[in-house]
Amino acid sequence: MQGQPVPLSRRLLAEATGSFFLLATVVGSGIMADNLAGGNGALALLANAMATGAILIVLITMLGPISGAHFNPAVSMIFAARRDLTPGDAALYALTQAIAAITGVIAAHLMFGLDAVQVSLTERSGASQLFSEAVAAFGLVLTILLTLARKPDAVAVNVGLYIFAAYWFTASTSFANPAVTIARSLTATFAGIRPADVAGFIAAQLTGAALGWLVARALTTDRRIDPI
Amino acid sequence: MQGQPVPLSRRLLAEATGSFFLLATVVGSGIMADNLAGGNGALALLANAMATGAILIVLITMLGPISGAHFNPAVSMIFAARRDLTPGDAALYALTQAIAAITGVIAAHLMFGLDAVQVSLTERSGASQLFSEAVAAFGLVLTILLTLARKPDAVAVNVGLYIFAAYWFTASTSFANPAVTIARSLTATFAGIRPADVAGFIAAQLTGAALGWLVARALTTDRRIDPI
Amino acid sequence: MQGQPVPLSRRLLAEATGSFFLLATVVGSGIMADNLAGGNGALALLANAMATGAILIVLITMLGPISGAHFNPAVSMIFAARRDLTPGDAALYALTQAIAAITGVIAAHLMFGLDAVQVSLTERSGASQLFSEAVAAFGLVLTILLTLARKPDAVAVNVGLYIFAAYWFTASTSFANPAVTIARSLTATFAGIRPADVAGFIAAQLTGAALGWLVARALTTDRRIDPI
Amino acid sequence: MQGQPVPLSRRLLAEATGSFFLLATVVGSGIMADNLAGGNGALALLANAMATGAILIVLITMLGPISGAHFNPAVSMIFAARRDLTPGDAALYALTQAIAAITGVIAAHLMFGLDAVQVSLTERSGASQLFSEAVAAFGLVLTILLTLARKPDAVAVNVGLYIFAAYWFTASTSFANPAVTIARSLTATFAGIRPADVAGFIAAQLTGAALGWLVARALTTDRRIDPI
Repeated sequence: MQGQPVPLSRRLLAEATGSFFLLATVVGSGIMADNLAGGNGALALLANAMATGAILIVLITMLGPISGAHFNPAVSMIFAARRDLTPGDAALYALTQAIAAITGVIAAHLMFGLDAVQVSLTERSGASQLFSEAVAAFGLVLTILLTLARKPDAVAVNVGLYIFAAYWFTASTSFANPAVTIARSLTATFAGIRPADVAGFIAAQLTGAALGWLVARALTTDRRIDPI
Repeated sequence: MQGQPVPLSRRLLAEATGSFFLLATVVGSGIMADNLAGGNGALALLANAMATGAILIVLITMLGPISGAHFNPAVSMIFAARRDLTPGDAALYALTQAIAAITGVIAAHLMFGLDAVQVSLTERSGASQLFSEAVAAFGLVLTILLTLARKPDAVAVNVGLYIFAAYWFTASTSFANPAVTIARSLTATFAGIRPADVAGFIAAQLTGAALGWLVARALTTDRRIDPI
Repeated sequence: MQGQPVPLSRRLLAEATGSFFLLATVVGSGIMADNLAGGNGALALLANAMATGAILIVLITMLGPISGAHFNPAVSMIFAARRDLTPGDAALYALTQAIAAITGVIAAHLMFGLDAVQVSLTERSGASQLFSEAVAAFGLVLTILLTLARKPDAVAVNVGLYIFAAYWFTASTSFANPAVTIARSLTATFAGIRPADVAGFIAAQLTGAALGWLVARALTTDRRIDPI
Repeated sequence: MQGQPVPLSRRLLAEATGSFFLLATVVGSGIMADNLAGGNGALALLANAMATGAILIVLITMLGPISGAHFNPAVSMIFAARRDLTPGDAALYALTQAIAAITGVIAAHLMFGLDAVQVSLTERSGASQLFSEAVAAFGLVLTILLTLARKPDAVAVNVGLYIFAAYWFTASTSFANPAVTIARSLTATFAGIRPADVAGFIAAQLTGAALGWLVARALTTDRRIDPI
């Protein structure tokens, strides 16, 4: 998706901008929805999922041409495995994503007048949750790689719609992203996850992402599919 | 929609992937929505319908160029009738769709910590339900064939939006798909249908699909419309 | 939007198909939503508006290249005024739209096991309602003409989104269509309108549509804007 | 986005048309949603946000080619800073936007049978609200400038989706627009803001917009990004 080489600093700024707004939206819309929904969890999740899907479409459309718009260390890892990104750049992407994601959580807290830094108490563990995260990341990587190979202009919309659906069809509400998981451990609001549950989620996500890459390769003629 | 011939094995893998995620979404989002909606059926159906429409857009966009993205034996039957698919391939498509759809239901159950295999107790019978399924499949085939003939890039979005609407405008919530119907008989959750009602649904769907093909032919200059 | 002349019979069949599904959706989704919403009018209207917007996008995308996809006598009248349609064809369009719309209402009733023909008791009258209908039709004609002139591929999406919004921003829930208004007088369900109120609605709609045409002309260089 | 120069009068008429319908939708859908939601604030905000996002996509698509479709003095100010608009034209844009926005509020009141002119009593003040408005306008300007530079056809959809998301992720429900803020001080309904709080909102919006411009410049090779 990159016409000409974009300097690394600008790519990292794009990853930071996207990860910031993604988490500000995930956490901020969770707080707003939870405040207003009067205890109706389906309505809160609907608003949360729609806001998340919408902002993903916006961010990937506008930042994709600059950095690829990963906002997700599991995705950067896959692109490194495909040799589309050097391991060093992938590591810098992941670090930038995590820091900016945490900053987005803090911004959401400040917008709603809450303590800037919090720790989640929400338990998300057990085999069903881990299987959910593996399926979620598997589908996300499939969606990105197959859409990129066949209809690159549709990647932004497809990722936004996929995540919307996956909020509903997985028991974990589809984190599917290690940077998002770490950042969401730092909020005691609707979208939180207990720090003790973060490592399991990330392991499941990386496993699912790797499987997604394998199946995407089986579904295309070319081993690497297409370079981004 | 196929630039160059895609090997049958890869087309079947694409049909399997799509049917798996379609059913994981239909059943999984039904469970999640039902769990959270506090008994409000409209809210549960809204989440279920939105998740289903969204994943259809994603799956058809990314898998359409590989297999045509039918995920539906009634649709494969129509393409066989149009000579776009051999009868043998259509049969393999249908078998693959049914098996993968059932696998998707099982995956949804496991993601939510439920028994893998279940049997539905939800009655869906009577003339209104059957008429609903015929109308639903009639409109689905019209949507696919006319959009494919005139604006093929819009097929994915049109099918997703059509199914969203048909969840609401039919009394049966628009199964419109024999593989989906069989698979949904194997869940005792929100999206289920009693095994005894499956045959009637499928007969109504095939009737509606055939009528859709006839009207699509009357609406276009070419008898076969366009080959896919 | 018509590449080569399409025979009148086929254009009328396209108008009939679209008007049928439009009303089946408006009335059917209203019944379903009302049945499930447990008295929450906002939730019922949300489902009704989303289903209507979605089916409009589908129908205009797939039938627009055949007949223009008006489904609305006020729109056919404007195209006749622009000399894009002969007065005779416009009259046949309007008659076809009304008959097919009524058929769609009957189909919705049958899908839900209700009496095929009904008469609405829902009062929709008074200056606010009439002003709402005039504004709704004014905006609809502006949307169609300006989008057609500048970005014809976006007409289907724009009309669907406009009607979704207008369900909410007008007090009348934006009928904006004489054929729809007549057909909806024949249902005693959520979407109905008392027969006594039909004439006022249609007068307001035609007035708004004519004003929309005038403003669209002021906003473009060409008097006729673009031919379709 | 302007193929050939459009006369100023026509551009102002386009800004007026868009600002009118934007505010008719924001205020009208707020009234409708509040009337029907039975006190459920999440449901009311969902309908209000969806209607607003939908009408923005419609209006920007159809009016963008004429005037740029700003409907927002903060956006016109940024385009003046980029030398895409003369300061005089920007001032006329802003004045037109404010007057038409107020007219849209009055139209919404009349459609719902309410007093034409009202004054809001809804307090929206404090550091969290102001920080929310700055973040909202920052993101809006980033969205407009980056999308315009890289994928101009997606501006309408991106702005609509961004505003939908920002209704939820900010504590202020994202006014992000001085003309909208002034106009919404003149309604005592769901969407209102106390006149005393208008100046703070506008200051925060202009600050956020300016920061958005700076970051957009850092993310692109060209200092001015692209001319519109």
